[in-house]
Amino acid sequence: DGSPIGFVTQSNADQIWVLLAGFLVFWMHAGFTMLEAGSVQHKNAINILFKNMGTVAIGAFFYYLFGYAWAYGTDNLIMENDIPQPNEGSFRFIGSGNYALNQETNETRHSWFFQAVFAATAATIVSGAVAGRINLLAYFATASVLTAFVYPVVSHWIWATGGWISMFQFDRADSIFADENGCGMIDFAGSGVVHMTGGIAAFWGALILGPRLGRFDADGKPVDIPPHNITIQALGVFILWFGWYGFNCGSTLVFDGPNASKVAVTTTLSPSTAILTSIVLSRFIAGHFDIGMVLNAALGGLVGITASCSVVDDWAAILIGFISAFVYVGGSKLVLFFKIDDPVDAIAVHGFCGIWGVLAAGIFSTNELIQSAYSSAEMCEGWGSPLQFRIQFIGVLAIISWVSAMMVPFYLALKAINFLRVSAEFEETGLDMSEHGGKSAYTGEPMTPQHESTKVT
Amino acid sequence: DGSPIGFVTQSNADQIWVLLAGFLVFWMHAGFTMLEAGSVQHKNAINILFKNMGTVAIGAFFYYLFGYAWAYGTDNLIMENDIPQPNEGSFRFIGSGNYALNQETNETRHSWFFQAVFAATAATIVSGAVAGRINLLAYFATASVLTAFVYPVVSHWIWATGGWISMFQFDRADSIFADENGCGMIDFAGSGVVHMTGGIAAFWGALILGPRLGRFDADGKPVDIPPHNITIQALGVFILWFGWYGFNCGSTLVFDGPNASKVAVTTTLSPSTAILTSIVLSRFIAGHFDIGMVLNAALGGLVGITASCSVVDDWAAILIGFISAFVYVGGSKLVLFFKIDDPVDAIAVHGFCGIWGVLAAGIFSTNELIQSAYSSAEMCEGWGSPLQFRIQFIGVLAIISWVSAMMVPFYLALKAINFLRVSAEFEETGLDMSEHGGKSAYTGEPMTPQHESTKVT
Amino acid sequence: DGSPIGFVTQSNADQIWVLLAGFLVFWMHAGFTMLEAGSVQHKNAINILFKNMGTVAIGAFFYYLFGYAWAYGTDNLIMENDIPQPNEGSFRFIGSGNYALNQETNETRHSWFFQAVFAATAATIVSGAVAGRINLLAYFATASVLTAFVYPVVSHWIWATGGWISMFQFDRADSIFADENGCGMIDFAGSGVVHMTGGIAAFWGALILGPRLGRFDADGKPVDIPPHNITIQALGVFILWFGWYGFNCGSTLVFDGPNASKVAVTTTLSPSTAILTSIVLSRFIAGHFDIGMVLNAALGGLVGITASCSVVDDWAAILIGFISAFVYVGGSKLVLFFKIDDPVDAIAVHGFCGIWGVLAAGIFSTNELIQSAYSSAEMCEGWGSPLQFRIQFIGVLAIISWVSAMMVPFYLALKAINFLRVSAEFEETGLDMSEHGGKSAYTGEPMTPQHESTKVT
Repeated sequence: DGSPIGFVTQSNADQIWVLLAGFLVFWMHAGFTMLEAGSVQHKNAINILFKNMGTVAIGAFFYYLFGYAWAYGTDNLIMENDIPQPNEGSFRFIGSGNYALNQETNETRHSWFFQAVFAATAATIVSGAVAGRINLLAYFATASVLTAFVYPVVSHWIWATGGWISMFQFDRADSIFADENGCGMIDFAGSGVVHMTGGIAAFWGALILGPRLGRFDADGKPVDIPPHNITIQALGVFILWFGWYGFNCGSTLVFDGPNASKVAVTTTLSPSTAILTSIVLSRFIAGHFDIGMVLNAALGGLVGITASCSVVDDWAAILIGFISAFVYVGGSKLVLFFKIDDPVDAIAVHGFCGIWGVLAAGIFSTNELIQSAYSSAEMCEGWGSPLQFRIQFIGVLAIISWVSAMMVPFYLALKAINFLRVSAEFEETGLDMSEHGGKSAYTGEPMTPQHESTKVT
Repeated sequence: DGSPIGFVTQSNADQIWVLLAGFLVFWMHAGFTMLEAGSVQHKNAINILFKNMGTVAIGAFFYYLFGYAWAYGTDNLIMENDIPQPNEGSFRFIGSGNYALNQETNETRHSWFFQAVFAATAATIVSGAVAGRINLLAYFATASVLTAFVYPVVSHWIWATGGWISMFQFDRADSIFADENGCGMIDFAGSGVVHMTGGIAAFWGALILGPRLGRFDADGKPVDIPPHNITIQALGVFILWFGWYGFNCGSTLVFDGPNASKVAVTTTLSPSTAILTSIVLSRFIAGHFDIGMVLNAALGGLVGITASCSVVDDWAAILIGFISAFVYVGGSKLVLFFKIDDPVDAIAVHGFCGIWGVLAAGIFSTNELIQSAYSSAEMCEGWGSPLQFRIQFIGVLAIISWVSAMMVPFYLALKAINFLRVSAEFEETGLDMSEHGGKSAYTGEPMTPQHESTKVT
Repeated sequence: DGSPIGFVTQSNADQIWVLLAGFLVFWMHAGFTMLEAGSVQHKNAINILFKNMGTVAIGAFFYYLFGYAWAYGTDNLIMENDIPQPNEGSFRFIGSGNYALNQETNETRHSWFFQAVFAATAATIVSGAVAGRINLLAYFATASVLTAFVYPVVSHWIWATGGWISMFQFDRADSIFADENGCGMIDFAGSGVVHMTGGIAAFWGALILGPRLGRFDADGKPVDIPPHNITIQALGVFILWFGWYGFNCGSTLVFDGPNASKVAVTTTLSPSTAILTSIVLSRFIAGHFDIGMVLNAALGGLVGITASCSVVDDWAAILIGFISAFVYVGGSKLVLFFKIDDPVDAIAVHGFCGIWGVLAAGIFSTNELIQSAYSSAEMCEGWGSPLQFRIQFIGVLAIISWVSAMMVPFYLALKAINFLRVSAEFEETGLDMSEHGGKSAYTGEPMTPQHESTKVT
């Protein structure tokens, strides 16, 4: 409790470190907001601001009431000789207990904060992909379901003690891969848990909603709908990258300089390489230096390294970033090929690069770094081996299956009651007009004529 | 002094923690600036930027020369048997000594930094309420008086050792409430000290200045003057919330994980609840999902929890946020009812929700949490009791009285010499033109015609 | 490695502190980007965003491969009796070894991260000065050369163990000023190493490129080309100041509350004084309250204090800020007098104020503070003496000479192959059109007519 004399305890420092990292993750919500607001049309800017402000609130509120309980509550553990053990039943799948933090002390409360800002991230990823046509309340319902239930279950599987594919088992002998000396799925900061979950929910949302009016012409050819403010979009990317240092480095969960430093380096090298790669790619694919491609490739490089940021060598981080750029560009083309309209490329960035990130952790992770990152005394045979890749692959399939199984019926139900999408008239006028009181995000005189005279053209 | 061997001392960590939190509070000035710049008309944007950049400088400079001395200087303590004691005279009211940090060592300098960025916050709250018509130099004079004197006195009362209503008395037997076993006023991070002080100064400023031209029509009915850039306004709110984690969590003043974590959770729950409440409220009151109401309700929820962030249970934080939304909305309507023009709703957000925050600390605080937050060995009878509410109420009245007594004559004097408000002509043209060299914040060609052809409408 | 029991080691805390500070320095890249994007014309905004996103990537990548090795690699130290000693040959001038961090452990990796984000800063300073007419690939080549080689050599001289003018010599008896009891050059956080290096590279770039079309009229009189978004420009300055707390305080390189606090105070007082000074100056020189002058003076005050932030008294920090405002304003006029076009005044802010900062450290530093800041047991005669000023002056000349010797031939070579500047046609159309796929950073309907009716003018 902060006595002014003596030395700092490790547990005290752990808490402060996680809080500071959590502040940065909170700040990522500003990044998503600016990125998305800049990316959409002028007439939908308020709608984005409103949605994302609401996402943070919904995320905090529902994760407080239910989400944290279903992710990390331990009431449904089985006690064997007074030692808690994962049972083969419910605790493998979902947590229980500690609803509304009713079992929490101040010593562990930092953990809720950090996990809560993560949860809201998964939801906010969706908001960009469905921008410009989703009904506001339908989106809020989506965000609620994601933060209260869908995301917590995924995080339980992979990050909770005893989750069926978790690295954090009480006893590795309990692992479902124990026969093969395997441990669990490596997803250090959440390429899978957070980004894939958001990306797949975004995919189904965008698909079931259908494209914005005019996004494809009569022949089905895509028509570009340009962002209304690329400066703000770029600001969003810088905010996200800055916040990502909290997201990845903070996922050490302890005040641990060496591992956090390791993470900071890979979290710099991967997006940097993705940027350089995309600069070249954009020159050859788009025929010019495409800003949108570079901004999204930076994010793709960040998503790609997130699962393995603590467990791969530098050269692997560079290679992961390099490939992330291709995965993003290819993913984006693929989404468009299937006539899915994703205004901010969230599916390609978070979904595709998220999958790549989880698989890459199975390919490039080294035993030594995993031992250090997971403070593990035992060595598991599977690391860096075909088995580990198989575990990662199973994790990818599990996340895809779970999120799809939850979100597809959900979206279809909303669609069936005609609640999912705004009317064509509203969409054309713009959501700022129709849902937000006939306001525009911008007002003012036309661009200052008094300067036009001195303008150099 | 940072020896590379050995362990970290608590006092070293305390300093670093307060610095980090102070950086975040500094960053809040960017938040106020963006919030206010976005909220005003296009023609007054430069003026806001200029004012707020000046506010930071004025705040730092005058708080360095005088403010810190008058807040925390101890030259006018009385020594009894070599033990410092608050005297009944000057030290109860104001500090003295340590002007220009002349008694400071590097070991305590972090404290000045943290308090200085707080001081400037109180001033910057005013700048929004008086936007669009105040004379620039009159505003700078206001900021100087607030940061050098008005705010330091309030902070002395409530936060300094021996301040007449302070929780940090050398000896609780000295408390003016000692007869009743009461302690002092609970205002952990400054709902009263900072936000009420700023909000009340804003109230008198806006009232005495009068409304912007055209803000009320001939019948006295308010005419909406829309913000010129809501995206930037929303960015400001995100910055403020992010910085608020430094403002509230850093007010532990020590590297104290459990208490800081407690604060982070309440500082998340209250604004989140306020946002959700305001979403519903705006739908029913305004008839649409009003972005301005939601953005300001978020701030109201933050202001509301600031006094009690470390001393209330989670459910109380939620309730405080819920009520904050009503207090903000009601306050905003009340201000308008009295024909006061507050372009950014600073009076409702900081003044009204500040009052609510101080009172809420008297209602919802628990003995156990107060003991933890204030590292207090003794128990005071008044906690959570009618007495504590009375102490809080006295604090509210004292702040209102002091700030009003200082600022009303000040504004009236400026008005008497015709120095307070710009001319009607300047106001109509816009302050950017009249005071800032005939410039506009924005120039450029009209919105790009080449994209209009592909625009979907 | 973050054991949950026990106490925090100093070395662990040092790493975390440097990481946190490094995150803030990374964030400065967002500041430069917004500052520059806002400062240029509407038609070149995407180009700035693209360049600065690329700068971070190039900086990280090349500093990883080569830069860090040439700055801090120690393979070319001479071992004398198993004790490493600077030789009079290569190690005085440049480091070697540890390419691609091949000798790094996780315990020292935080250092690379911190230095890498610094390196990219030196490059990004150039990007503003050459905005609006440089060929994108020519700029990327410039950034590569700067971060891989030119900047690392400067940082080796001044910050590496054994650099010929470094304060961090293994043995002060090795100093080239040892005969006079002098030590090395004081440049705590890099007024010289970072800002002068960037500023001088910016100077030659702007000079050799020539001014933007229309920047000077037929009579050679400067024609104002106004910034296109001053709100975003101001946001950039706030981001930079916020990040500067990481830049300066983090340069303690250890978790050291007292010295970091000292730095935070001077890093607040100097820019604050520069702002106040420039407010008065702008009123008298420009005849109005000039926002551009105030924003740049704030940066000038930050650059000016960077070398001496840990080693001067508060009054000196104030004086340094005061003079910085004059240095910036004078420098800006001088640059214009020589018909050099610097769209963001980077030469005046970083070059001139950088020189001033290095010299100021020789004038105002005190022995006591230097001992504390550099954890030095020995006392060097030269501190606060004519000798120290001479050392600083030699450092300034050395940086100017080195950067000029590298960059002038580099720019001239690019010019000779007609690769340096875009065509006049492209420049007139704007780089966003010509290099970035015919896009504009902004699209949308003209400013909302529906609000014009309620607009108060």
